[in-house]
Amino acid sequence: MSTAKRFMDMTWDEFQALDPAAKMPYFNRGERPYHALIAQQFNRPMLDRLCALATNIRRIAKTRDGMDFLASLLAHKRAMLYFTQPSSRTFLSFYAACQILGMKVSEVRDATTSSEMKGESHEDSVRTFSSYVDLLIMRTPIQGFAEKMAWLLSSTERPVPILNAGSGKDQHPTQALLDIYTLQRSFERIGGIEGKKIMFVGDLARGRTVRSLACLLTHYPRVKLYFVAPDSLQIGRDILDLLTAAGVEFEVSSKFEKLMPEADAIYMTRIQDEWDNPADKGKLDISNYSITARHLSLLKPTGVIMHPLPRRQEIAVEVDHDPRAVYWRQVRNGMWIRVALIAMIFGRDRDVARHFEDNLG
Amino acid sequence: MSTAKRFMDMTWDEFQALDPAAKMPYFNRGERPYHALIAQQFNRPMLDRLCALATNIRRIAKTRDGMDFLASLLAHKRAMLYFTQPSSRTFLSFYAACQILGMKVSEVRDATTSSEMKGESHEDSVRTFSSYVDLLIMRTPIQGFAEKMAWLLSSTERPVPILNAGSGKDQHPTQALLDIYTLQRSFERIGGIEGKKIMFVGDLARGRTVRSLACLLTHYPRVKLYFVAPDSLQIGRDILDLLTAAGVEFEVSSKFEKLMPEADAIYMTRIQDEWDNPADKGKLDISNYSITARHLSLLKPTGVIMHPLPRRQEIAVEVDHDPRAVYWRQVRNGMWIRVALIAMIFGRDRDVARHFEDNLG
Amino acid sequence: MSTAKRFMDMTWDEFQALDPAAKMPYFNRGERPYHALIAQQFNRPMLDRLCALATNIRRIAKTRDGMDFLASLLAHKRAMLYFTQPSSRTFLSFYAACQILGMKVSEVRDATTSSEMKGESHEDSVRTFSSYVDLLIMRTPIQGFAEKMAWLLSSTERPVPILNAGSGKDQHPTQALLDIYTLQRSFERIGGIEGKKIMFVGDLARGRTVRSLACLLTHYPRVKLYFVAPDSLQIGRDILDLLTAAGVEFEVSSKFEKLMPEADAIYMTRIQDEWDNPADKGKLDISNYSITARHLSLLKPTGVIMHPLPRRQEIAVEVDHDPRAVYWRQVRNGMWIRVALIAMIFGRDRDVARHFEDNLG
Repeated sequence: MSTAKRFMDMTWDEFQALDPAAKMPYFNRGERPYHALIAQQFNRPMLDRLCALATNIRRIAKTRDGMDFLASLLAHKRAMLYFTQPSSRTFLSFYAACQILGMKVSEVRDATTSSEMKGESHEDSVRTFSSYVDLLIMRTPIQGFAEKMAWLLSSTERPVPILNAGSGKDQHPTQALLDIYTLQRSFERIGGIEGKKIMFVGDLARGRTVRSLACLLTHYPRVKLYFVAPDSLQIGRDILDLLTAAGVEFEVSSKFEKLMPEADAIYMTRIQDEWDNPADKGKLDISNYSITARHLSLLKPTGVIMHPLPRRQEIAVEVDHDPRAVYWRQVRNGMWIRVALIAMIFGRDRDVARHFEDNLG
Repeated sequence: MSTAKRFMDMTWDEFQALDPAAKMPYFNRGERPYHALIAQQFNRPMLDRLCALATNIRRIAKTRDGMDFLASLLAHKRAMLYFTQPSSRTFLSFYAACQILGMKVSEVRDATTSSEMKGESHEDSVRTFSSYVDLLIMRTPIQGFAEKMAWLLSSTERPVPILNAGSGKDQHPTQALLDIYTLQRSFERIGGIEGKKIMFVGDLARGRTVRSLACLLTHYPRVKLYFVAPDSLQIGRDILDLLTAAGVEFEVSSKFEKLMPEADAIYMTRIQDEWDNPADKGKLDISNYSITARHLSLLKPTGVIMHPLPRRQEIAVEVDHDPRAVYWRQVRNGMWIRVALIAMIFGRDRDVARHFEDNLG
Repeated sequence: MSTAKRFMDMTWDEFQALDPAAKMPYFNRGERPYHALIAQQFNRPMLDRLCALATNIRRIAKTRDGMDFLASLLAHKRAMLYFTQPSSRTFLSFYAACQILGMKVSEVRDATTSSEMKGESHEDSVRTFSSYVDLLIMRTPIQGFAEKMAWLLSSTERPVPILNAGSGKDQHPTQALLDIYTLQRSFERIGGIEGKKIMFVGDLARGRTVRSLACLLTHYPRVKLYFVAPDSLQIGRDILDLLTAAGVEFEVSSKFEKLMPEADAIYMTRIQDEWDNPADKGKLDISNYSITARHLSLLKPTGVIMHPLPRRQEIAVEVDHDPRAVYWRQVRNGMWIRVALIAMIFGRDRDVARHFEDNLG
């Protein structure tokens, strides 16, 4: 409450200029997230509690009674998915997460159906939409817009939590959360994420996924990160500086096959040429940054192959049948971590813990 | 029942030619609306009961138990939003209203996804869609179409209530209801709407909102209406004739700033140049019909500023923070009055009254 | 379970080459459908049980308690409607069916909003979408795609039932089921479908509806089928061969008016010229394959007029008021048979039977 007041006392320009770390108290309320806007707002205890909550929810969901319990948690709340940037995958994952919690969902998919064509500002549109609901999940092409709406609504009579479901080329915090959750589940029986070697492969220059996940991995002691890509697609200097500052070991390379045997997790990414000039499409040879059946013998037996999907040729379909290919499970993890995030935002994590102890503990 | 029979015995042309007052018994069932098609079908007792119901519902909705009660009222009913004219705002307001009452909602947003491209008549399409649901909420560009469907379905085995959510440039009755509700709430402690001075400003020639609201205000004794606009956008002669016939005092002027201090409510509107020839856009200077921070000292301390939204420059964003700016609350009122309307159509107003007495009375 | 294993052991090409009858055990699980992919997978006992179930559900649905019971059946399940081929009618019918059973529904309507524009395969997209839900209802322009997804998902950790809601010009099995249900209801008091004369009229060459229904009618002894159409639109040789092989009597003719008095059911269809070259539109005179008020005296008093809708001029609007015009009831039947189908797939037919006996038996 007092936090919200200070938030609203700043101008948007003042607020925007803050360091990510300085924004944490404005986006979180004590130990819980209130908004979910940038990956950096999640500290290690929060990540651990989110992962544990997601796992409990996943187990509770295995029975009819459990599903009924989950659907009772937020049956009195309404969520809106405001997605003016196309995305079926993230949209449907959030949609299912809301449904699992019993929330009633509405959606805005296309800016042109809105009043914006009548000359209304984006801010007015979204403020109007927020009036009808208790939670706003936003994906827009405008960088920083979810943050701006959180700032703007904080000074009104009716602020609501805002989840950033991807803004421009910038932040996509729930993708980073699902990746952390997938790593945590994958290494559950072999000591967790700490000390693991995680290799990012492909288009590291543009993929916001890799950038956000690298930030969150600084919370895990003794991890080593590998960035494997052709020079033109290598990870940005800013991320490497951030890792150095956090004391995280890393290696930058273009030799995928040579490094494969070292990785505990290989995080494949897609060349995002939909951002490119159409004329440049397909010029880059990425065959050296792909996994096919013949590579499987090179991988650690306990290693995992991840991918945020959609994929193109960077992982051959025949790899899907290998038990180390966890990218399909990653999709489901995305749904569960979003259920956990929303439950925690509305303070229902305690109810889940109680239900778990009473019924499955 | 007997009313419906007489309704269906007329041809569409005969029915359409009736005076609005004569249509009232066909659209209402005794003291309750059955359809909601034109503003004129609501008489004063109905308006008073709708406003009281909306307020009770709004209070009940403040608790989890209350939300659960509301969501049980129509959990066995399905509503369809047939919106072939774009509108996010009205769409989402109705959507939320249905969700609050527990209704299951489906939607048709785009005529081209329908069977109409296969040569089906509009009437057949909508009759088909109505088969799947218990309530039809319609917004179409075709004037009178919601009325026509109500007439057509009344002669079938399965009529359903129809709510007009805006048809062409003509009727938008729930907008008028939400405006009445906002006025009633705003003047709750200072004697209600009766005797108040209500000023309409801006584009009065084309705005159906103003026309419908002016009609409903004839039910409130001693109100005085001001129509403030440049000559080319002044209110139509037909509305003035209607007010004269009803004995309502009014004043037509182009002097906004001079009249500001007299108003109990200032109802701002947007120049609707999306109806215009694109070449004419922006030719008209509307700066004299706008409110900025410097006008706030001119307004009555008990006055309110309303706007149906979306706005453009006619209300400066800085005005939003003034407590007399009620246009954002107006958005929420729209949702609540729609909840009340649907509850009343299905005869659940008695259940709400009982719940209110038992729990909050 | 063991069936699914064998299913997944085949390659797609091997599976696709199987005879429809040979596919039945892969699509059904014992006496219940698991997927609903082709009309031919439904045998007579299954059709009888589906029709009986639909009727029980329809009766249960008449009360609030009944609706609450139905909505409890699958309240813990989520369905997805993946409709990349436009269809309001079938979409909304399935949507309502899911809602009646309490399922939470999500939708994909437009392939361009999906990750397919990022180069993802159709198979990956649909597999991703299937991760979020418990039931997939698909309509695509790609022939055989629903079958392919059923085959593909059967070899994954998380197969889900798939309902084919229309694929290309090929299969539309739930349309055939609703037609059977409409015939069964229409002839309930006059001995059922067995021995009846069923006349198909109009565009029999392209309509998948007629082809599927003709297949299912081979399960009913002593029916006689009439195919009445201009030569260029007559039924395919393959269907006639199938009927001959099944020992079903039929007659092929172009004389509609002459044959009218013989029919127990007249199944009208629309000339589907949206498949045609635009230049050819309207060239064919179909006035001899239409029903108007003047034909009504020619029809049997117990006869029924059916139409899958949408219609154009082949049935005049004035015919709607004749009690033998059952095409509007057919629309509702479509919803009920889909409720029954989904309930049976999830094994809830026993719960419905028990509820019916306890409350309405």
